[in-house]
Amino acid sequence: MITSNDNQQLKTIRKLHDKRQRQRTGLFIAEGEDLVQAAEDAGFEAEALLVAGVDVESELLASVSTLGSGTRVIGVYRQRWSPPGGRLSVYLHGIGDPGNVGTIIRSTHAFADGPVVLGPGCADPFAPKAVRASMGSIFARPPGRAAWDELDGSSIALDPRADAGVADVSLDGPVVLCLGSEREGLPESILDRAACRARIALNRGGPESLNVAMAATVALYERTRHEIRMADGG
Amino acid sequence: MITSNDNQQLKTIRKLHDKRQRQRTGLFIAEGEDLVQAAEDAGFEAEALLVAGVDVESELLASVSTLGSGTRVIGVYRQRWSPPGGRLSVYLHGIGDPGNVGTIIRSTHAFADGPVVLGPGCADPFAPKAVRASMGSIFARPPGRAAWDELDGSSIALDPRADAGVADVSLDGPVVLCLGSEREGLPESILDRAACRARIALNRGGPESLNVAMAATVALYERTRHEIRMADGG
Repeated sequence: MITSNDNQQLKTIRKLHDKRQRQRTGLFIAEGEDLVQAAEDAGFEAEALLVAGVDVESELLASVSTLGSGTRVIGVYRQRWSPPGGRLSVYLHGIGDPGNVGTIIRSTHAFADGPVVLGPGCADPFAPKAVRASMGSIFARPPGRAAWDELDGSSIALDPRADAGVADVSLDGPVVLCLGSEREGLPESILDRAACRARIALNRGGPESLNVAMAATVALYERTRHEIRMADGG
Repeated sequence: MITSNDNQQLKTIRKLHDKRQRQRTGLFIAEGEDLVQAAEDAGFEAEALLVAGVDVESELLASVSTLGSGTRVIGVYRQRWSPPGGRLSVYLHGIGDPGNVGTIIRSTHAFADGPVVLGPGCADPFAPKAVRASMGSIFARPPGRAAWDELDGSSIALDPRADAGVADVSLDGPVVLCLGSEREGLPESILDRAACRARIALNRGGPESLNVAMAATVALYERTRHEIRMADGG
């Protein structure tokens, strides 16, 4: 039973709150029983696993948790990255909020067969907040990283100013849904070279755009429905 | 220019971080230029409006902000509540996270003509985190509060175990999308008495449910699309 703050495993966990330490070591942490279970289900082996009251005093575990008191288990895992691919996948540009990145990883796991590919300016998907928002999908469907022009497939650039709805676009082969931040959108270099631009139809008089995690989720859902309709003969 | 912590307006703002004080006074705060602009656009008159460097020293404003340094303006407003209604609206039961409540207020504003009606166990929609997540939709489309059996219209109870997809359900007249928390779902009393139960179709092998804000957004989008398809003759 760990009873000292000075313990090496506790020090490692504390360090992994920091992005540079995650990048340097290739490790990350998952906090709580649900996430640790998700890791196990996906075949991740813990580099370290500390259970409160068993391996470590509860107060000490709480002191290295981003959740504070009540954390019952923290696991340390090695990061995995997926190659880009799949019939439907997502590309993100400049999504700086880890909660949004994690949520989109989860929605993509729920609706698509490919990963979330992270372009420049995105939050670290292995940040504790992103891991938590992914609700375990970070393990089941690890993210990818690539530049946009390295991707195969036809890109649909989400753009609130587009004429076509995301449901109306017919494309053969793999599709990549591309999203930029709500405020900045996608860079012109992607908007100009994507197979098409499409928007999510919103109420007149309502907000002009959706939170990026909402937009990604609706677009994923719609593309999945679109494929089903096509398979049913339109 | 306010230069003392002891100022009455600063004290009021600090108090309004607290739910009981919001309930007692019927007031709430909006932090940041975008939200204050949204309030003005929606015809809300500020009970107090403090601009950093103009009405109050920047450090003092930061000290009463939930956002900390960098807050340039805080407005105090009187809460408004909408009556239930509309062709499409949302009912929430037991959604305790203010970020989720605020996000759903925004998505409902984006896709529906009715409000979000809050049932028992929901977070205060006028909490700073909810106001922020609503991105101003709290002003443009204030929430309602009612018990489920006070609502008019046909209820679709979102339920991951349902057979029908939310797109497949045909109902005449106003529709109320009802959602419970991701973990607990809706109570049996609502599931049993709703016009129907429906789910959002997810990938096999993926997560068994979506975050409630994602589920609400997709369901709202799908019902809007459904109405358009019906209007086009199916």
